[in-house]
Amino acid sequence: MPIVGMVGGGQLARMTAQAAIGLGATFRVLAESASESAALVTHDVAIGSHLSLSDVESFAGECDVVTFDHEHVPAEILTSLESAGLLVRPGSVALRYTQDKLAMRDRLTALGVPCPRYAPVSSVADVEAFCRAPGGSWPVVLKAVSGGYDGKGVWVCSSPAEAADVLGHGVALLAEEFVPFRRELAALVACSPSGQGAAYPVVETVQVDGICREVIAPAPGLNASSAESAQAMALRIASSLGVFGLLAVELFETRSGGLLVNELAMRPHNSGHWTIEGAGTSQFEQHLRAVLDLPLGSCALSSPGGFTVMANLLGGTDPDIYDRYIHVMAADPAVKVHFYGKEVRLGRKIGHVTIVGEPGDDLVAVRDRARRAASYLRWGTEDGD
Amino acid sequence: MPIVGMVGGGQLARMTAQAAIGLGATFRVLAESASESAALVTHDVAIGSHLSLSDVESFAGECDVVTFDHEHVPAEILTSLESAGLLVRPGSVALRYTQDKLAMRDRLTALGVPCPRYAPVSSVADVEAFCRAPGGSWPVVLKAVSGGYDGKGVWVCSSPAEAADVLGHGVALLAEEFVPFRRELAALVACSPSGQGAAYPVVETVQVDGICREVIAPAPGLNASSAESAQAMALRIASSLGVFGLLAVELFETRSGGLLVNELAMRPHNSGHWTIEGAGTSQFEQHLRAVLDLPLGSCALSSPGGFTVMANLLGGTDPDIYDRYIHVMAADPAVKVHFYGKEVRLGRKIGHVTIVGEPGDDLVAVRDRARRAASYLRWGTEDGD
Repeated sequence: MPIVGMVGGGQLARMTAQAAIGLGATFRVLAESASESAALVTHDVAIGSHLSLSDVESFAGECDVVTFDHEHVPAEILTSLESAGLLVRPGSVALRYTQDKLAMRDRLTALGVPCPRYAPVSSVADVEAFCRAPGGSWPVVLKAVSGGYDGKGVWVCSSPAEAADVLGHGVALLAEEFVPFRRELAALVACSPSGQGAAYPVVETVQVDGICREVIAPAPGLNASSAESAQAMALRIASSLGVFGLLAVELFETRSGGLLVNELAMRPHNSGHWTIEGAGTSQFEQHLRAVLDLPLGSCALSSPGGFTVMANLLGGTDPDIYDRYIHVMAADPAVKVHFYGKEVRLGRKIGHVTIVGEPGDDLVAVRDRARRAASYLRWGTEDGD
Repeated sequence: MPIVGMVGGGQLARMTAQAAIGLGATFRVLAESASESAALVTHDVAIGSHLSLSDVESFAGECDVVTFDHEHVPAEILTSLESAGLLVRPGSVALRYTQDKLAMRDRLTALGVPCPRYAPVSSVADVEAFCRAPGGSWPVVLKAVSGGYDGKGVWVCSSPAEAADVLGHGVALLAEEFVPFRRELAALVACSPSGQGAAYPVVETVQVDGICREVIAPAPGLNASSAESAQAMALRIASSLGVFGLLAVELFETRSGGLLVNELAMRPHNSGHWTIEGAGTSQFEQHLRAVLDLPLGSCALSSPGGFTVMANLLGGTDPDIYDRYIHVMAADPAVKVHFYGKEVRLGRKIGHVTIVGEPGDDLVAVRDRARRAASYLRWGTEDGD
C-alpha cells in the first residue's frame, strides 16, 4: 500500500487519518506540534513547519504522494517538491488558484465561469472607481489576495473611510461586488489523475460572521437543473485547473436563482463533513482515493429522500465539555458527535455534529436536532447559538 | 476526555481506534508487536504481552478504563488490575464466561437460557456415555473448555476413534450435542455500568470451516418475535453476567425455529462489522461508549428496509493485493473495503467488505456484490470462494 502524507495537522488531517485506516493506506501527517488535532490520533507524525522547505522536503521524501489540509504551503516549496519528482496532489499549478484570489478570478473569468464583479485595488481612489463604475455600488467587499480563511481577510466596507482602514493593513487587495445572495451553496467534487470525476449532491451552507455554522445536504428546494449545473461547473473547474483530489466550490445563489463562484478550496472542506455519515463515501476517503489515483467511491446520499444536517461546534466559555457531551448523547442517541481534540476557546471550531434524517423527516426538525446538540455542547443550553 | 486502553492489537482494536477518533476519546493499545493491525494506526501504542502481569499493569496504570480485543488475558491478571482499583470493562467476573466454556454452559443453563446438551468429558468412555444418554447420538462436538476461536478448539467427531484423537491433545474438553441447525444467527447488544442496554438487529452469519464468511443484517425472514426474543435473551445474559461493553451471542436457529446459544464474546465481534456503515452507531463506537459509561447510540439500520451484507476477506496466495483492490473499487463504487494492514497469508482474515443495500434491493444481488468483491480481492477472480 502506498504512503500518503498530509501537510498540516488540523481537523481535516485528523478525519483523513480516520478514513485512511479503513482504506488500509499508510498515512503520515506533518504537524506543527504534537498537540495538533491530527497529531493526537495519527500513528505516524512528523513535527515541522509547512513554511520550511527542509521540513516539508524531508517529510515528503518518505511519502509516495503528498497532499494538504490547508492551502498555506508556499508555492516555491511546492514547485521544489515537484522538481524533485515527488507526487504533489493537488499540484502547485492548481493550488496557485487557492493562494492568489486575483489569479483565481482571472482564470475563472477566462473559463466563462460566473463570478462577482472584481478588480485589484491599491488605493481608496481605486475602490471608489470600482464602486462608481457600471454595476458598482457601496457596500463593497475587500479581500486579501492571499492568506484569508474562515472570514479572515474579508471585509465588507460601506464607505471610503472604512475602505481606507482596510487598505491601511498593507496587504494586496481585491475589490468585489457585494452580492445580495439568497443563500450560499457548495459543490464538492473529486478528480483523479486518471481523469475520473465524481460529484457530491450540492449543499446549502449557512455562514455567520464568515464562519460556516450549518450545512444541509442536499440543498433544500434546489431544482435539478441548477444542482446539475453547479456540479458540472465544479467538475469543469477541477478539470481546467488540473485539480487532483477534492475541489470545493463555494457559491452564491443570487436572488434571481443564478450562481456565482465565491471561493475555491482544494482539500476536504467544512461543507463536506456531512459525507462521513451522509454519503456512500466520506469526503476524506474520497480525497485519499483521488490523490492515490484509486477509482472514486459513490457520492450517493446514504439516506435518499432524507436531509443530512451538519452543525459546527464552536467553543464556548466552559472548557470542560465532557458532562455536556453525556447530556447530548443521552438526549438524542442518533446524533453523531465528532470532536477534534482541540482545547476549547471561544468561537473556535472544536468539532461538529451530524444528523442523518430519514426520508420524510421534517427538515426543520432535523436542523433543530443538530442545532440543539451543538448549542448544548457549546453553552450547556439548547437555546444558545 | 478519559483515556481508554485496549489490550490486544488485532483488527478489532484497529477499528476501535478509528471509532475513538470521532468520539474524541484518547485511545491506547497494548500490542505484542509494532506490526500488529492496531499498532500500525494507533497514535499511542504500548508494546507488551497480555500474558505478562507487569506489561498489562503498567499499560492499565495509564488508562482510565481498560478493555479488550480478545478474551485471552488470564483471570489472575484481570483480578489483579481490579484489586488495584482499575476500571476493567468487561470485568473478570463476566470475562470468565468467555474463558471457561463449561462455566458458561452451567451459568446459562442456571439462567434458563437454552443451550445445546453438554457435559464435561475426559475420556472416550465419557464421550460414549454422553452419546448413548437420552437425546445423545453421533456425531458429537468436542470443544476445548478454554482458548478456542475461529473454529480452533472445536472438533466434530463421528466415532469414538475420532474422539480419542481429540482427547489425545490433552486439553480440558466439553462434549456438546451436534445441532443440525437451519442457520446461525448473532445477537449483538451493549450494556453500560449505568444500566443502559441497546440491541442491534439480529443478523444471520454464514460460517465455513468454523470461520465467519458472511453476515446479513437483518437476518432475512426472521420473524419479529424470534428476533425480539433473541435480543431479549442477549440483554438478559449481559445483565445477568455483568457485562459492561458489547456482548455478542452466537445462536443456532434449529430446524423447528428454536434458538440455542452457541458462543459468547464480550467485545466487538465479526458479526458486527456491518454496523460501521449499516447502523446508526458502529459496534466499535458503541463498545467505547459502553465501557466509558456514556449514553449508548442508536442501533437502528442506516438503510431501513434494505439488507447490509458483510463478507470477510481472507488471504489468498498472491500477497500483492493493490491491483486487485483497484479493480474492485472500479467495478463497484459503493463497495466499502476495510483492510486490517495484515500481511496476506492463505486463509487469514485480512479485511472485510460491506455493501449497504437500498430498500427493495434484491438480497441475492447484494450478497453477490459482496461475495464477488471479496473473491476478487482474494483470488483475482469473481468466481472464487
